[in-house]
Parts: sequence; structure tokens; C-alpha cells
Amino acid sequence: MNDSGVELLAADLSTDRLHAALQDPALASMNFLNEVSGRFPEAISLAAGRPREDFYDVEDLSRYLRIFCDHLAAEKGADPETVRRTLFQYGRTKGIIHDLLARHLVRDEGIDVDPESIVVTVGCQEAMFLVLRALRRDEDDVVLSVSPGYVGLTGAARLVDMPVWPVRDDERGIDLDDLVDQIEAVRAAGKRPRAFYLVPDFANPSGASLDLEARRRLLAIAAEHDLLILEDNPYSLFQSEDGKRLPTLKALDTSRRVVYLGSLSKTCFPGARIGFVVANQHVAGAEGEFTLFADELSKIKSMLTVNTPPVAQAIAGGKLLEHDCSLVEANTREIQFYRRNLRLLLDGLSLRFPPGGNHQISWNAPSGGFFVVVTVPFIADNAALEYGAGKYGVLWTPMSHFYDGPGGEDKLRLSLSAVSPDQIEAALDRLALLFADLSGPRTSMH
Amino acid sequence: MNDSGVELLAADLSTDRLHAALQDPALASMNFLNEVSGRFPEAISLAAGRPREDFYDVEDLSRYLRIFCDHLAAEKGADPETVRRTLFQYGRTKGIIHDLLARHLVRDEGIDVDPESIVVTVGCQEAMFLVLRALRRDEDDVVLSVSPGYVGLTGAARLVDMPVWPVRDDERGIDLDDLVDQIEAVRAAGKRPRAFYLVPDFANPSGASLDLEARRRLLAIAAEHDLLILEDNPYSLFQSEDGKRLPTLKALDTSRRVVYLGSLSKTCFPGARIGFVVANQHVAGAEGEFTLFADELSKIKSMLTVNTPPVAQAIAGGKLLEHDCSLVEANTREIQFYRRNLRLLLDGLSLRFPPGGNHQISWNAPSGGFFVVVTVPFIADNAALEYGAGKYGVLWTPMSHFYDGPGGEDKLRLSLSAVSPDQIEAALDRLALLFADLSGPRTSMH
Repeated sequence: MNDSGVELLAADLSTDRLHAALQDPALASMNFLNEVSGRFPEAISLAAGRPREDFYDVEDLSRYLRIFCDHLAAEKGADPETVRRTLFQYGRTKGIIHDLLARHLVRDEGIDVDPESIVVTVGCQEAMFLVLRALRRDEDDVVLSVSPGYVGLTGAARLVDMPVWPVRDDERGIDLDDLVDQIEAVRAAGKRPRAFYLVPDFANPSGASLDLEARRRLLAIAAEHDLLILEDNPYSLFQSEDGKRLPTLKALDTSRRVVYLGSLSKTCFPGARIGFVVANQHVAGAEGEFTLFADELSKIKSMLTVNTPPVAQAIAGGKLLEHDCSLVEANTREIQFYRRNLRLLLDGLSLRFPPGGNHQISWNAPSGGFFVVVTVPFIADNAALEYGAGKYGVLWTPMSHFYDGPGGEDKLRLSLSAVSPDQIEAALDRLALLFADLSGPRTSMH
Repeated sequence: MNDSGVELLAADLSTDRLHAALQDPALASMNFLNEVSGRFPEAISLAAGRPREDFYDVEDLSRYLRIFCDHLAAEKGADPETVRRTLFQYGRTKGIIHDLLARHLVRDEGIDVDPESIVVTVGCQEAMFLVLRALRRDEDDVVLSVSPGYVGLTGAARLVDMPVWPVRDDERGIDLDDLVDQIEAVRAAGKRPRAFYLVPDFANPSGASLDLEARRRLLAIAAEHDLLILEDNPYSLFQSEDGKRLPTLKALDTSRRVVYLGSLSKTCFPGARIGFVVANQHVAGAEGEFTLFADELSKIKSMLTVNTPPVAQAIAGGKLLEHDCSLVEANTREIQFYRRNLRLLLDGLSLRFPPGGNHQISWNAPSGGFFVVVTVPFIADNAALEYGAGKYGVLWTPMSHFYDGPGGEDKLRLSLSAVSPDQIEAALDRLALLFADLSGPRTSMH
């Protein structure tokens, strides 16, 4: 027994003998957020980035399965034994709904790729891991990412011991001059810049989007400096105005410069855990043979998860088929819902912190997506979060969690996806009280 | 354009700039086997280790879902919103059927562990990756494994750049004296032996099992030399006689020496991709705090796949619940079926290659599981496999594929799990012709 009352045995372990990722601040911060929201269950959460769930219905699952099975029989000529085998057995490592995802990409994104270049993954997180594992050959390989950035990318990079080199953001999403500077800095440090990761549409956490000119310039920079672009696109359907969608980088890519990372978590449902990667680059082998990068990623997947669960793919496939493979069509209600919430959140902030007021509160105005970033005249750290949860019953995310190092101390992320319009109004009232409390001469929060 | 007719672009890649796992012989061998079986679809496969599929029924899936939802409502008091959220949303990283798996372990294996020490994974393959990723801190960390051994372990080790140090097998499964020698050899090489991986019951590929004395001695060796045992147990239900099951290493483990790796692929169905790991070791942190090893593995999982798909867990959970969490009970028909096939295979070999005959063919006699190893008087390599597939219409697996280096050249693995009794008889007739063909003075197979 030691002081903790834990009786240790010789077979027990210690973190200093385990992989360094386990002591990573990114992991600690996610655990902290979960722990705080668990401790204050009555607080309204503008922290959670999960999708709205009351459009889901348990009865849908059996229908999706049936639709997918009918599709196998009708469109693929599968007999009942083949249908059964497809759902129950191990299957194709690259997945069984790659053709449906290719149809989605044509219909919703104007991306036309060979379905063979698609690997269906256990969420987009596995897709990020596969790509980074493939690209990280030795300690000189580096991935660049905008900072603040998505913690999932940082986490996957940690697991393959690959440094994430930060690139500054600006109000348009990415400071492209800084990107060039950082590519050169990576090379000057004797390292290899293998890829630049970003979410071009309504980024998590910043909400920012690249305009068309920036997209073209980014592709040109990647070509000039010979690195891949890892385009992560979980949110682009959720733009705030009809007809305003910009082409994805992959749609603009004529030279296989972009590896496209897709997620159905927001557009189908998270519990299916379906993501995918489009990797249509050619890979030259040692003996002059060529493979698709997707096939190389598939080899890694075979040693990681073997298959994305065919039953989960079948369910997601059924939802795709029900809407002729258009996720825009499948998300008609959702798009309107998130759009309304974004407007309510931005209008509600303007109402409570009017222009010209003495509040020192400002925010960005994303044109879609799930997130808005607010700048405040106090340190928006874990202590402030905990204080606001306990005293005012509102949760949000410190932006500092999205920096791999210092940054974002006076900013916080508000998420609008998992709350009702009424909850947004109530949460903003509570935030206004918290901001007033913390903006004055700081008293003890404890 | 180059000689292959592939037009290369600047963004394309080459394997010498990608992670070394992509050029691993283990991956190449699996691809070769798939390719051969694809080319000879009419051949009878004694190569495939997948479970028999005609006990499955697509209609079961909706019933399993309903049973699991009813369980959430009845046993956990979940309201409809909570049921919906559990299936559709992101969820607990360690999984949502950990308690059901804990009940299975008590009922079927006599293993009594805190459900909190269980992490539900995307197949057992992800469980192996999580454990090796955690244990591999730097280039000195080594995992030992019996050779010939399971290629999935080798693959996961490759992804974390962890050497797999071979330990000799013998007719009882593992040469425990060689295990001690190899642990000492690892240390003498300045490396750290972190764990020893094995399948104690009906191993893949050897079919061998450790007797009770060997199990006890193995636990003592691990304690004396301070390394973990990674016990992988996909097959132990499928013993050839009732009442003959031996305790798992984890059931014998009183000192948290064993990390137990479970798979439902053979006992539920592969397409759910449900595996799990029992990791009840304590882990001491830098500041004197303690966690469960399962919670450390969960942190890695959060950066790899986030969750095991809740819908897939719900389906597997429904099957578990339908049999009061006993997989022995759920597999009554399957146990009888595999038992009969094993007897048919062993009897059929005896009939065709009688004792004392001039055939130089011998084989082991596993007491359960899916695999039998045959020793032949010729080189049982890929060329022989391809020759037999084309000329005689029978598929098997060269044992050399299961060695990380030379070994097994005169041996092949027969799998009995995915064939009918009639197919076993036909396949053995074809094998007998192939063996006679190749055992004589070798003529050209091409």
C-alpha cells in the first residue's frame, strides 16, 4: 500500500515507462473538459461539438440495414448468401461503401474520383492516423497545421512521434505568408515538410473559412514547395446561406496534391464511426511497380483495425442510399437548424454586447459550421471555465486547448450544434453574467 | 508516362519515403494469399481462418439491436433519449458493453475483473495496437512472441517500430526454456523485454495449447523476469471435448501479470469488429496519482478511433444478452460444428496417410480450435500453393508466412473453420494428389 491506498504489484506500470503521448497536454485537456461537464450536468454546454441528436430515431437503424441489403441484391446482383457474408464476415479492407461515398463526392462536392482511391475508416480519426503513419518514415518528417488547430490531428501525430509544426491563423483562416515561412523554416531545421493539414471550411475551433483566392494560392504553395495538403472536411455542408458553398480544395486539385479526409459523424451520425480518406496519389514501389496511396493506407489499416465494421458501414450506406448518396439532401433539416442556431448565437452576442459598448467583448462571424470564437478581456482558462460552470451554469471551451504551446488565452470557443434555440438564449444570458463578473477587477474564483 | 503507363505527377509518392511497415513481408504475404484465392475461386480453401457463416442471419441484426435497447431501458433505467444517444452519438471511449463483457468473462472463463479495466476495441487487432503503442516508449522496448506466430501481432508491432523477438515453439506450444533464454538475450542486447505475446489455446497457426503446468510455469517466468504476458484468446471455447477446458492465464493470474486480449470475431461475428482488452494493471503517474492501464489505453484509443462504433457494440451486446452473456451458450452449434470438422480433418489425414506408410507426411493433433499443421517432404512455399490451387483446386497456407525470418518451409497450415464436412473430404483428396505430385522427384510446377 502507498499513500494513495493503491496496493501496487510488481506487474504494475508507470507512465515514465510508457509512450510519451500518454502524458500529452492535448489528452489531459480533453479529459478535463469531460470531467468538468460530468461534474456540472445541469450546465448548458456551448462546449460540445457533437451534432444535434433529436433528428435520430432508433427505428431508422433497421431500415438503413434493409435499404443497404436491398441495394446489394438489386444493384450488385448479390444473392442472399453474399448479402449475409458482406454484413457478417471480415470484408474488403478498404471498405464496402466506397462506391456510395464516391457518388456522394460527385453529388455534393463536385469531386470525381475512382472509388478504388477511397478507404473507409473508423471515423476520420483513423483516416488521419493512417495518413500520418504512412508519411512519417523517420524523425525528420514533419506535418504542418494551422494553430489553433484540431486536437485530433495533434493526437494522431503524437501516436506516430511526428512533430506538428504550427502555422499562424488569421481572420481568413490561414496566414499563407506564414505557411511559406514555416515550410522554409522546417527545411532550414533539416526536416522534411510532408503535409499541411487544415479544415478549409468552418474550421474547428476557429470557424474560419478560406476564400476562393486563398484556396487557389494554397494549392500553388503546396505545389511549389512539394508537400501534400490534408484537407479535412466535416462541416462544409453547413454553410449559412444557400448557394454560397465554395469548392473544396480536392475539387480544385488537378494534380493529386490533396488527400481528402471525410467524416460522416456530423452528416450521418457519430455512432456509426464512419470516416474515409481519398488518396488517389500514385506510389512508386522499389521494383518499378505502382500502387494507389489508398492501397498503401489499406495495408496499414489491415494491421490496425482490419476492417471498418461492415455492419456500421451498411447502416451508413443505407442512409446514403435513402438520399441517393447526397448528404446535402439527407441533412436538409440539420442544415436549417444549425443555420438558425448560428444566427441566434451571433445576434444574441450583438444584443448583449452591442457595438461601441464598454465591454471589450468581440467575436468572429463564421459563414457556417458549428463554432464561434469570442475574445474577452480576461484569461479564459480552465479555472474560468470551472468557475462559470459552477456559478453560472454554462460551459464553453478555452481556446488555449487548441494551441500546441501558448496562445489563445483571451479567447473561448462557443459551439452551437448540440443546443436548442432556447438553450442558446439562456446560455448567452449566463455567459453575459460570467463575462461581467470576470471582466472587472479579478476577485478570487475559488 | 513511364514504362508502366502510369502518368506520374509531382505530388505522387514512393515507398522509400513512406513508413517501413509498408514494405513488410508479413503484409506482402497476406496480400499474396488473398490474390491467389481470388484467382482460383473454385478451389476449396483450407486457408481461410474465418468462422462458418451459415449460422448467421441478416434478420438477427435488428433483433440484437432491440434486445440491447430493451436492456438499456430495463436494466439501466435509460429513457428513450438516453437509448438514442447511446447508439447514435459519440460515447464512452472505453466502450458501452464493458459490463456485458465482464459478465461473459465470469461465466465462460472464470475471470472476475472490474468492468472499468476493460476497453472495447475495433477487433482484437486494435487492442494489440493499443497495448504495444503504450508499451513501446523508445527503441529499446521489445515484445517477445512465439514463432511461428500470429501475423496480426507482428503487424501491430511494425506500426510502432517495435521489434518482435522470436521464441521457439514445441509440441506443447512454447519452449519455455527458450523463453527464458530469449528474455536474457534481449537484456544482454541492451534491450527491454516488455511483454510476451501468445495464444495459449489452439494457437494460430500451430493449433498447439499449453497444458496447465506450462501455464503456471509461464506465469512464474513472467514474474521472475518482470514482463507482462499478452494473452490472446480467440478460440478457447472451441475445444474438442466437453469439460476439458483449461483455465486461461488470466484466470490463473493473481498478480495482474496478464493483459488479456479478447475477440468476438469467432464467437459473435467478424463484421461487428468487436474485440476488447482487460488491462487491470495500475499505472503510477508522475505526481503520485494512479490510473488503470485500461485508462491509459483509452487515451491512445481516443487519438486512434475515438470510439468503437456504438451501433456495432449494441449489436454484439444484443447477442451477448440473448445468451445471458455466455458465449459458450451462444456457440453451442458452432462448438459442435468445429469439433466435428476437426475430427473429420484428423481422421481424413490418417486414412489417406496411414501410420507406417511411405508418405513422409505427419501432422499435429490439436485438441480444439481451427488449425492443424502438416509436415511434408517438399518445400511448401508460395509456388507450391499456387501450383496446387491451379492443378488440384485446393488452398492452404504456407507455414513460412508465420515466421518473421526463415522457418516452416516444410510445413503448411490447414484451417477447418470455413468449410463443410463434404468440402473437407474433397479437399483432402485433392491434397493427397498434390502431396504425391510434389513428394516425388520434383518436376517443374510452372
